Parts: sequence; structure tokens; C-alpha cells
Amino acid sequence: MVTAEQLRRFIAGVYQAVGVPADDAATVAQLMVKADLIGADGHGVFRLPQYVRRIRAGGMNPVAVPTLVQERAAMGLVDGDNGLGHLAVSLAARTAISKARSAGVAWCGVRNGNHAGPASLYARMALPHDMIGVYFAVGSANHLAPWGGIELLLSTNPIAAAIPAGEEPPVVLDMATTVAAYGKVKVKAQRGEAMPEGWMIDRQGNPLTDPTRSAEGLLMPIGGYKGYGLALIFGLLAGTLNGAAMGREVVDFNADDTTETNTGQAIMAIDIAAFGDVAEFKARVDALARDIRGSGRLPGVDRIALPGDSSHATRLLREKAGIPIPPPLRAQLDTLAREVGAEPLP
Amino acid sequence: MVTAEQLRRFIAGVYQAVGVPADDAATVAQLMVKADLIGADGHGVFRLPQYVRRIRAGGMNPVAVPTLVQERAAMGLVDGDNGLGHLAVSLAARTAISKARSAGVAWCGVRNGNHAGPASLYARMALPHDMIGVYFAVGSANHLAPWGGIELLLSTNPIAAAIPAGEEPPVVLDMATTVAAYGKVKVKAQRGEAMPEGWMIDRQGNPLTDPTRSAEGLLMPIGGYKGYGLALIFGLLAGTLNGAAMGREVVDFNADDTTETNTGQAIMAIDIAAFGDVAEFKARVDALARDIRGSGRLPGVDRIALPGDSSHATRLLREKAGIPIPPPLRAQLDTLAREVGAEPLP
Repeated sequence: MVTAEQLRRFIAGVYQAVGVPADDAATVAQLMVKADLIGADGHGVFRLPQYVRRIRAGGMNPVAVPTLVQERAAMGLVDGDNGLGHLAVSLAARTAISKARSAGVAWCGVRNGNHAGPASLYARMALPHDMIGVYFAVGSANHLAPWGGIELLLSTNPIAAAIPAGEEPPVVLDMATTVAAYGKVKVKAQRGEAMPEGWMIDRQGNPLTDPTRSAEGLLMPIGGYKGYGLALIFGLLAGTLNGAAMGREVVDFNADDTTETNTGQAIMAIDIAAFGDVAEFKARVDALARDIRGSGRLPGVDRIALPGDSSHATRLLREKAGIPIPPPLRAQLDTLAREVGAEPLP
Repeated sequence: MVTAEQLRRFIAGVYQAVGVPADDAATVAQLMVKADLIGADGHGVFRLPQYVRRIRAGGMNPVAVPTLVQERAAMGLVDGDNGLGHLAVSLAARTAISKARSAGVAWCGVRNGNHAGPASLYARMALPHDMIGVYFAVGSANHLAPWGGIELLLSTNPIAAAIPAGEEPPVVLDMATTVAAYGKVKVKAQRGEAMPEGWMIDRQGNPLTDPTRSAEGLLMPIGGYKGYGLALIFGLLAGTLNGAAMGREVVDFNADDTTETNTGQAIMAIDIAAFGDVAEFKARVDALARDIRGSGRLPGVDRIALPGDSSHATRLLREKAGIPIPPPLRAQLDTLAREVGAEPLP
């Protein structure tokens, strides 16, 4: 267990050691720790060794200056200067929130960015402003084929949405458009477990359940052609519209540390006050949430959750008890600190 | 077969016969025929008897005047005055498109509306303006339970998105957040066919395949809890945010002709020119579409389609050959014309 503060300091120290300016290192460290606090364990400090490897290999710019290159009253477009994805997307989120305050709704896209952690991180930024956040991203590796196809032309392009409530936790959805995210396949492989049918198929169309063969397979989209359609649309909104990579242009950032990824994301902020009374809105969300939570259950079901309930509970727990660092990750982080000459985690 | 022009005249005549002003009757007739032209057969003239029944029963206001009740530079909120849904949503779409032209992106919500036909109808309105349209709606009857639940607290809340291409057809997604839309269940029942497993479950959690028992069952969301999350988020955006019905408040407009539905929808327009060169964007969409269409296929798959391909082909066909009216629908429409004293279909 480490505290959020310890983890923040560690991550910032590692980034500074590889040439990231102190302010940027602090910004990214804070966002990565937020990912760990909400239980997005595959998108927090877990990614640090990979990000650093990419910086050291020359594939990511440690001194990037993300810039707003296009803007109108309710839109912006950020060029991430091939820096850490968190810097570009958090600038985009701040831009969307600030413009939505006057325009009512605003949208900001990103190009020349990189992997930026869990989708919900940015949608959530709208919450303290009594705004709704909606986020789309092009995933950082293609594991999905068009419906009926066998070529990996699409990523698991996620959507996140964060909607403020009153006394209830905010409603926060964060989902890939595939039945299982690729990270879950990797976990199955590490554990030596089979995947359930429905996660992947092979190039003959047969169910693929052996996670060690995942490179031969295709992730399945949710709802068949519907999930394919969502992945395509989200990719067009987050990638193509911004001049970012989409389709064959997407670089597999797990396999390739040097090619610029030109990752694209998009964030929208909706100012609830533009539509009506904020307290009334929150009371309606509370009422709906309670209605759903208290509704009748299928046999064997203990509780009915809303999207965001589990990350909310994890955050409350981890803010008190600290963030667990599994021993293999701990060893990786110690090695990383040694390699770059940074302070190790306490 | 009838021509689009014949169908438009017929629909407008029926509406005028039940007290809808000529301009509004023409607007709604044109939109309903567009639904038939793109093959959304369950959302075009097929719905006319139901809409008219609702007007005559006093559940829908034939002389409604939808009004923009809130606005900012990039948002609007339309009160539909409980009139035909098409009037309120098309006003919302025009508002979003007009505001997006200066603000770059704009969003317009609807409350006190009604069923407005297929989701893609409104997303498509952005296309001739070189804009992207995205649409969300609260469905007009609850057939979905929260994940793990048995109470029908959610509808099949759809999303539509329309993205212009250059030489290729536009990419147009229009999907419910359930594996099957409820209309498909009704078609199975009419044909005396069983439903595939995965469409519905009963209140014990067992697969329900007998469509005549559909009232006992729950539609299944796509991707399990993910589709539940999407239905909830889309409902919050299209319903709760606008002060429209959501959750238990949703009226089953198939079963109840008199209670105001307070249906909510939301439409967003994104001006591509705000992000960069429109021709370049369209060329990128074309390239992606061709890449997907020409990509390798699973055994037994003839062709790989993009969302919108099939409705595009139907439209080209029906604009030439006319719109098929199946005999049972024809009989219904003849009866309707007689009842309200309008000219029948030729």
C-alpha cells in the first residue's frame, strides 16, 4: 500500500528524471494517481514503465507543449505535440469546460496526442463544475475487425460519460466497445485461465478461448454489428475529425515505442445550468438512481448498481487505506526508478 | 408501391383532416416519408394510425407550437408543446445546425415531445451542411431492466450518428441499446417464429424465445451491463437533462393513447469546417470506408458493410421504384383515411 501522495511524488520524480518539466510531471502524476484511486488499475501507475520506455526510445516528446490550434465559441482543437496524452487531453477538457460555461455546451478534440489513461478521468473533470462530461477516444492498438471481417482496422474505442448527482454518487460510465477490453485478455493469460466464449474469435470465426493465442484473434464488439458501429463512430469523432490516426494508421503502442501515435480524443462539456435549475436536475438524477438501486432483482442478484458505483467505492476506500501495488508491479517500478535515477516508492 | 410524393400527400391530408395545420402536416409528412425511403419501415407511415389515434384520443396536441425555451451560443432547449415529435425534433435539429455554424458545435434538447420516427432522420439533417449529427432519444416504452434487475425502468434509448463522406455514402449509425429492438420481437410474433436466445429473458433470468410471451420478458442490453449503461446515459442526456420523462415516468405510448408522454430527445451538430478542411475530412472518411469495405472477410461473409450502407441502397431503390406498402398496412391506411375523411392513397 502506498498513499496517493507518495505515489504522486514517485511518478512525478520519474518523469522529471527523463526530462519532463516539473509542472507537466506533476499534472500527469496527479491524473495517473486519480486513475489508481478510482480502481482503473490498468491505466494508472501500471502504465508508467511503458510511457517512460516510449519517452526514452524517442517515440514521445517529454517537453511537448500542447496548443489550442483551432477554436470557436463552443469548440477547440488541441495539438498534443506528441507529448504525454494526459497533458493534451486535460487541456482539451479545461477548454471544453471553460467554453461551455458561456456557450452552454462545448467540444474539444485532440490530435498528436498519446494514450491518456482511463476515459472516465476526463469526463469526470466536468463534475465539479456542475457539468456533464462525455469523452471519446481512439484506442492505442487495433484489436477489432469490421463486422464480418478479419483485419484489425479498429480499436476498442471507448466512451465515457460523467453525470453529476446530488446526494448519490455521480453516474460515470467508462466502457470499451468490445465485450472485453484487451487488458482483460492479458490478465487471463497471466493467470493461465481460459477466456469465456464471446470475448474473441479466431480468423475462421471460431470462438477463441486460449488467451495465449490472442494475437491470432479478434476481439468481439458488443452487440455484434452494433458495437462495430459504435467503435467506428467514436473513432471518426475522436480521430478522423481531429486529423488523428484512425483505421490502419493506428500504431500499436504496446509493440512499437518509436513511431508517433498521433492519438486522438474528444471531450464534451454540457453546462446543466443552461438547461434549467441545477439542484432540480441533481434531485432527478438522485431519484432515478435510487429507483434503479431499489428495484426488483433477478434470482441470485445481490444488488443493482449504477455505472460508477464501483469506482466510487474504490476511491473512498483507497483515499483512506492507500493504493495497493502488487509485488510484480512494485518490482517493475523499483527497477524503473533505478534505471532513470529517481527516488523509488517508499 | 406508391411514390414518395403520393405518400407525402396522403400523410399530410390525414393530418390536416384531424386538425394539424397545413404547414406542420407537410413537415411531418415529409419526415415520415424520408423514414420510409431509407427503409425504416417501422418508423414511417406505419406509425400514422397510432399518431392519429393519439391525436383523436386527446393525448397529443394537433396544433402544438414547439418553442425554443432556453438558449445560449451553442445550446437550445425546445418545448414540444406535446405536439407531433417530428416538429419539436426538427426544430431542435435546425437550431443545433444554425448555432454550430458559428459556434463550431451545438446541442439542442427537447422536452414535451413525442415519438419522432427513426433516430437517424435527425442526425442526417446535419449532412447537407457538411456537419456531423449525433442524436439521442428516450424510447417511447420501457422494455429494459437495469442490469441484474427485473423492473422495466429503461427504454431501448437509441443513438444515431451521421458523418458525411465524399464519394462514399455517409456513415450513418442508428441503433437501439438492446440486442433486438422491440419492433423485431413483434415481427417474430406476427410470423409465428421463435426469437433467438439472447434477445429476451424472463423474470427468472431464463432465455425467453416465445415472442407471444414478450410481455413477461425483458429485452437484453448489448454487451450486458455496458448496454444498460449506454441506455441509462442516453436517457439522462435526452430525457433528464431536458426535464423530459425518464425511468418510471416513461409512458408506454403503444398501450396508452391519452397520457402526455413528455418524450425527450437531444441532437448535436458538429461543423467539420471548424476543425479543418472539409474536403480533406471527407477524403479521409472515404479512404477509411474503402479500406474497411475491401478488407479480408471471415469464411462465408460476402461483403463488409459500413453503418448506413443498407439504408443508402434502400433509398436509391425506393426513390426510383417507389415505396412498398404491405397489404395489411394498406388496409389500415384505407380505413384510417375513411375514418378521418381524408383522400386515400392512390
